[in-house]
Amino acid sequence: MEFIFPQKVLFKHCDPAGIVFYPRYFEMINDCTEAFFDQALGCPFETLLQEAGVPTVQINTGFQAPSRHGDALILTLRGDGLGRSHFTQNITATCDGQTRFTCQSTLVYTTRQGQPQPWPDTLRHHLAQFTGETP
Amino acid sequence: MEFIFPQKVLFKHCDPAGIVFYPRYFEMINDCTEAFFDQALGCPFETLLQEAGVPTVQINTGFQAPSRHGDALILTLRGDGLGRSHFTQNITATCDGQTRFTCQSTLVYTTRQGQPQPWPDTLRHHLAQFTGETP
Amino acid sequence: MEFIFPQKVLFKHCDPAGIVFYPRYFEMINDCTEAFFDQALGCPFETLLQEAGVPTVQINTGFQAPSRHGDALILTLRGDGLGRSHFTQNITATCDGQTRFTCQSTLVYTTRQGQPQPWPDTLRHHLAQFTGETP
Amino acid sequence: MEFIFPQKVLFKHCDPAGIVFYPRYFEMINDCTEAFFDQALGCPFETLLQEAGVPTVQINTGFQAPSRHGDALILTLRGDGLGRSHFTQNITATCDGQTRFTCQSTLVYTTRQGQPQPWPDTLRHHLAQFTGETP
Repeated sequence: MEFIFPQKVLFKHCDPAGIVFYPRYFEMINDCTEAFFDQALGCPFETLLQEAGVPTVQINTGFQAPSRHGDALILTLRGDGLGRSHFTQNITATCDGQTRFTCQSTLVYTTRQGQPQPWPDTLRHHLAQFTGETP
Repeated sequence: MEFIFPQKVLFKHCDPAGIVFYPRYFEMINDCTEAFFDQALGCPFETLLQEAGVPTVQINTGFQAPSRHGDALILTLRGDGLGRSHFTQNITATCDGQTRFTCQSTLVYTTRQGQPQPWPDTLRHHLAQFTGETP
Repeated sequence: MEFIFPQKVLFKHCDPAGIVFYPRYFEMINDCTEAFFDQALGCPFETLLQEAGVPTVQINTGFQAPSRHGDALILTLRGDGLGRSHFTQNITATCDGQTRFTCQSTLVYTTRQGQPQPWPDTLRHHLAQFTGETP
Repeated sequence: MEFIFPQKVLFKHCDPAGIVFYPRYFEMINDCTEAFFDQALGCPFETLLQEAGVPTVQINTGFQAPSRHGDALILTLRGDGLGRSHFTQNITATCDGQTRFTCQSTLVYTTRQGQPQPWPDTLRHHLAQFTGETP
């Protein structure tokens, strides 16, 4: 299973060279993850974060081709690993079939004070559908 | 040789959990690189970008510990590789001796249309002082 | 006529107090205007800005109540004045009927070099539908 | 008395037209206010916000001329009104003597829950030096 997140490149994302300023890609990536938890896992961040945290601990990103104002990006999120407290996701952004960036990031489920804790069973069950692992 | 860039964590950088929202770290990283080109290489982006580009093509980042509002971060930039058209830099951010994030990114020197081109001699000479390579 | 722009409050919009950091509201306002030109006027910014500019020259905003992560804001844009080169818009954001902010801003249609120029006839015609003025 | 805040226009502030994207000005304005509380009032936000809030309730801004990448802006903050719980400030940004924007905004001192409360005496005393009012 995979999660699809469309994102048009807006004026605010672009730099003086007319292409996406790469820190804005990380806002898109975070928006994609937030939508994934809301729409695919049934666990919106605004609820989850009342009593837990999901900080990103590692993120590796390659930018294969620039994106321009107006481009209709498609971000595709796939699970790539599910541990006791962590989840690794791969996100690829394409436009008209061309890859714009690929990203692998790892989130950790923590207490509000930042201590890693096990994923709740329901959330683990949903995440496992995206990694192909036994929950 | 290394380049030091102090960055206080400001209100705008922080999220509802009271820690830096990680896409804001990438703005700090870009500010650090921009200051490095200006202050250490004598080649400010506002001049360089009139006739060239320096897009980031790869960036890998680990977040070792959270940063909070008011923290006085010290970003240290070191060269890690200098090619015909690329430059790889390592940036580490610490606060009171604790590592907050470590980042490796690769920039490419391009035409304004995005085609890789060789670093100009003067710029290559300055960059080589940070990688320990023969220019 | 009015233009409706829904905007969920996302994690990236919120500050350590758990409410929207007000500069993020201006990104929402700009996104609303960009969507208005695209969807209501049939003139997407990515096309318009190839040969013109629409800088904001004045913007007055009142924040009546805070917005929190997860709130489903509704931005409503109404025209409030159409001149030879300018357009004044009022944008109000509400959530569950409560007003969160009200904003009046004036855009100017310019050349790419920033000189005011008359709105093109088609665009003026569409804008007039939102101000109730004779185009 | 007035408070001076220098701000170079950086790559991250600029849009595809090569000028500052106006929501970024509001980040500069907030940074200026944050530095004012820290450096001029002796009350850094990271301390103040532990037990209070200072939300902006109104902000009116005019953009007189565009700013470009590399411009050395000088923001000048002056007090324009001090009430039981509010403070009105005028911020003007210039570059080489040319006005780029002028802004008037009103902050309110609140509890962490957002209820207006009187300024503490020490803070009121310092603010009064910038408005010329009797504390």
